[in-house]
Amino acid sequence: MDTGNKIWLYDTTLRDGAQREGLSLSLDDKVTIAHQLDKMGISFIEGGWPGANPRDVKFFWKMQENPLTHAELVAFCSTRRPHQKAAEDQLLQAILAAGTRWVTIFGKSWDLHVTEGLKTTLEENLAMIRDTIEYLRSQGRRVIYDAEHWFDGYKNNREYALLTLKTAKNAGADWLVFCDTNGGTLPHEIAQIVNEVVSALEINPQDADSPKLGIHTHNDSGTAVANALAGVTEGVTMVQGTINGYGERCGNANLCTLIPNLQLKMGYHCLEAEQLSQLTQTSRLISEIANLAPDDHAPFVGRSAFAHKGGIHVSAVAKNPLTYEHIKPEAIGNQRRIVISDQSGLSNILAKAKSFGIDLNKDDPTCRHILERLKDLEHEGYQFEAAEASFELLMREALGQRQELFELKGFQVHCDMLQGIEMPYSNALATIKVAVNGRDMLEVAEGNGPVSALDKALRKALMNFYPEIADFQLADYKVRILDGGSGTSAKTRVLIESRNGKERWTTVGVSSNILEASYQAVVEGIEYGLLLLQSSVKTTVTVSS
Amino acid sequence: MDTGNKIWLYDTTLRDGAQREGLSLSLDDKVTIAHQLDKMGISFIEGGWPGANPRDVKFFWKMQENPLTHAELVAFCSTRRPHQKAAEDQLLQAILAAGTRWVTIFGKSWDLHVTEGLKTTLEENLAMIRDTIEYLRSQGRRVIYDAEHWFDGYKNNREYALLTLKTAKNAGADWLVFCDTNGGTLPHEIAQIVNEVVSALEINPQDADSPKLGIHTHNDSGTAVANALAGVTEGVTMVQGTINGYGERCGNANLCTLIPNLQLKMGYHCLEAEQLSQLTQTSRLISEIANLAPDDHAPFVGRSAFAHKGGIHVSAVAKNPLTYEHIKPEAIGNQRRIVISDQSGLSNILAKAKSFGIDLNKDDPTCRHILERLKDLEHEGYQFEAAEASFELLMREALGQRQELFELKGFQVHCDMLQGIEMPYSNALATIKVAVNGRDMLEVAEGNGPVSALDKALRKALMNFYPEIADFQLADYKVRILDGGSGTSAKTRVLIESRNGKERWTTVGVSSNILEASYQAVVEGIEYGLLLLQSSVKTTVTVSS
Repeated sequence: MDTGNKIWLYDTTLRDGAQREGLSLSLDDKVTIAHQLDKMGISFIEGGWPGANPRDVKFFWKMQENPLTHAELVAFCSTRRPHQKAAEDQLLQAILAAGTRWVTIFGKSWDLHVTEGLKTTLEENLAMIRDTIEYLRSQGRRVIYDAEHWFDGYKNNREYALLTLKTAKNAGADWLVFCDTNGGTLPHEIAQIVNEVVSALEINPQDADSPKLGIHTHNDSGTAVANALAGVTEGVTMVQGTINGYGERCGNANLCTLIPNLQLKMGYHCLEAEQLSQLTQTSRLISEIANLAPDDHAPFVGRSAFAHKGGIHVSAVAKNPLTYEHIKPEAIGNQRRIVISDQSGLSNILAKAKSFGIDLNKDDPTCRHILERLKDLEHEGYQFEAAEASFELLMREALGQRQELFELKGFQVHCDMLQGIEMPYSNALATIKVAVNGRDMLEVAEGNGPVSALDKALRKALMNFYPEIADFQLADYKVRILDGGSGTSAKTRVLIESRNGKERWTTVGVSSNILEASYQAVVEGIEYGLLLLQSSVKTTVTVSS
Repeated sequence: MDTGNKIWLYDTTLRDGAQREGLSLSLDDKVTIAHQLDKMGISFIEGGWPGANPRDVKFFWKMQENPLTHAELVAFCSTRRPHQKAAEDQLLQAILAAGTRWVTIFGKSWDLHVTEGLKTTLEENLAMIRDTIEYLRSQGRRVIYDAEHWFDGYKNNREYALLTLKTAKNAGADWLVFCDTNGGTLPHEIAQIVNEVVSALEINPQDADSPKLGIHTHNDSGTAVANALAGVTEGVTMVQGTINGYGERCGNANLCTLIPNLQLKMGYHCLEAEQLSQLTQTSRLISEIANLAPDDHAPFVGRSAFAHKGGIHVSAVAKNPLTYEHIKPEAIGNQRRIVISDQSGLSNILAKAKSFGIDLNKDDPTCRHILERLKDLEHEGYQFEAAEASFELLMREALGQRQELFELKGFQVHCDMLQGIEMPYSNALATIKVAVNGRDMLEVAEGNGPVSALDKALRKALMNFYPEIADFQLADYKVRILDGGSGTSAKTRVLIESRNGKERWTTVGVSSNILEASYQAVVEGIEYGLLLLQSSVKTTVTVSS
């Protein structure tokens, strides 16, 4: 491959992105996201700061059992503490224990942060940068050096800021990254400063021994993407950002915006075309995992990004999409959407069927029937982006390939909460009646919540017929309200992730009654688990390798 | 006033902004917004397209009865129809009837749109531009000319695009506006094209008879703000945009981001300092009117824009805000916010207390007690980062400032689902017993889900004592499982956002029983709403003036 126009993508969704207020990722969420980013073709995936955060330590252990295929997993850390030996610094020991080939070290560029924040001397800060990078290099690590507060530091004390980068360069950093940590810099300033620094540091892109340059921007001025592009125009070849622009305060540079701008408009190479076409799906999957509503108006990947209103406009687009669309939505896996009448989607259905190992022909009327059903359900609030198991069941049903496990006759759930003792005592009781193979089963179970009681009663009723379900476990349970305006009577969407030790799958349920929505997702979770056992060739949703 | 560095602000929230999918403004909403923008010091307020939209006709009538104080109200329209006299064109008659001093006319710059869209000749399009502007000038109007699809047109056929602008200039347009209608242009292209056009049109900013230049950008490439700034750097003196960046597809340039960048960072004059300090309030007010959730992560005006996490970081900001803040939040009417999490130290607690208007001394043992309680609760799965109202209640409780509204004696919830008819019939019934002011209240309510039934029963029991709660509404409801390993018996965390028309607040509940967790969050939501009403000095989250 000609790397002359290559841009390296560095994702920090799992570290800087997770700083977003209200975003909370479990250990399993982080593993799932890392593998999705790997699949999409991101070069560097920053996993966290081991040592600063016990969950990040566990994440790196878990990733050692279940490594990435192509991407480099990166552990993040600060320079050593003032007046301490690098080899004795606990944080540096923790980053080595993470067992990654690549590490990212952030150091201070701004004199004010050295004297007021670190409370040390400008000389000691340079020693901290040098010792840390040299030590990590001596331990066989490759080093990305994040120059924190670069632009503010440069404006405040140009000479000192340059000294910090020269120190990192001489200590053997593979990459030098300009960080606009406070997000206050504007594109014209980025361009000018990067241009000056490239000359001052005597960086020669042709020289393999010269460190490469990266940029890390925040969106506090609403220009994170433009700032990164300004850096690239001046010779930077790594962009750091997050999926959906998640991050502290106003977020980081949004990779879902940066990548198509770089590749489709500026002629750089970031991803293979087929990987780029997964961008929209990745954006939505990660917002579901994060349990944050996707931004419908996000550039490129938002649901409204290629939405057209009005008759003339629509027919103009149909004749020549170039008239009203800045790029082809298919290139990034999004689609044109006509706000009144819906169109297309057949190709998606076919592609999806193929991925499920289902043979479907586009002239088959079932194909259109599936599309209609999908649109009806999405209109009701279902969302299949992150619930592929439910979508496969829907497709098999339309094709007459779905076996009903049982028929629900009804259920009742009863919850009690009595106050008076110190901790409230709570209990739930569920009764369920189902017909399995023509036999009525009436069962009852207790749980410490209504969903758990219902789940247990259902399993009890099915266990004699399908003993395999004893191995199925609920791995995650997420609930979202769909229409805030209706208050607690609003529709709820439940996503349930199930697992059986080897595989994981996600199902969806929607209802104004949270119990009913949960019930739908639980039932489909059990059904899909049994389907997986039947079909030994099944590989699509496998997470572990 | 020295106008040498003045930028004219042109707001199109009421016209282009209203194109946003899901946004619907009533006539009264539009009038309220127009007056708020006038108060804030916007120069031009585009009200709509009379003639194309009957509601916009009424809007201009209504504004004639209730005129703006400082701003120019602007009516919007296309050039005349092909092969028709301007004086006989109904749309132009409608724009005159709107009775504004200023009108904005949009015309085609892109040859493709003339031949394929308008289905007319390139010559006729020039005549349409000339006739329309000359006619409106002859009727005493001042004219802003929006060159639609300017950048795409210029790239496709430079000579023709320039001819359209020369025609508008010669016909007497006061302003020529470069529109990136499809939003596909990047900042470096904007800068280059504007620079070339200024020379080609021989625009002399010193010459009062020369038209001035404006820019209108869309966010399809995520660079609408940077694009407008690039235009300004090249000599443009009017920026068009919308409040909160509302607009079709991915939105228009966000004035709430543009204005502080221009004025606080680039040294241009847009607003008086006192007007600029209304920016955050205006942003939130307009999102309330539009009934859209405010974007907490919006640059400058978002709730998280100046939020700080982590002890060291927080103490650094307290000492010198410049270290972690790109501007002073007060300048645009926002405020610093300390985010509470288990990484917090005492300094966070103190800063938080201050923001709640609670007087707390760091040597007070209560301070440490609050920190311990916070950590215990976060260990149990509570999360206060996104639930500040619950945190304030916790703090007031520790200080003996919390009044218990009622005592819960117990509740029962019963759900039934009966199968057999086509759609499952579901219902929930809740009974609750509470003691309020020493009086036992036993109430029952139905809902279409257990949480809704419980919420209704509780409100019924409290309504006689606290009639104000009738105004409280649930704005959002989120549920997350905390420990996937325990399946459906796992602990759940519920976040509930409540609102009362003016303010929003979020509360949290945690339990293995989803109903109990929801109950906790609902109760605290009601309690906090009442607290807000009691404290008339409360201004932190106030939206309206």
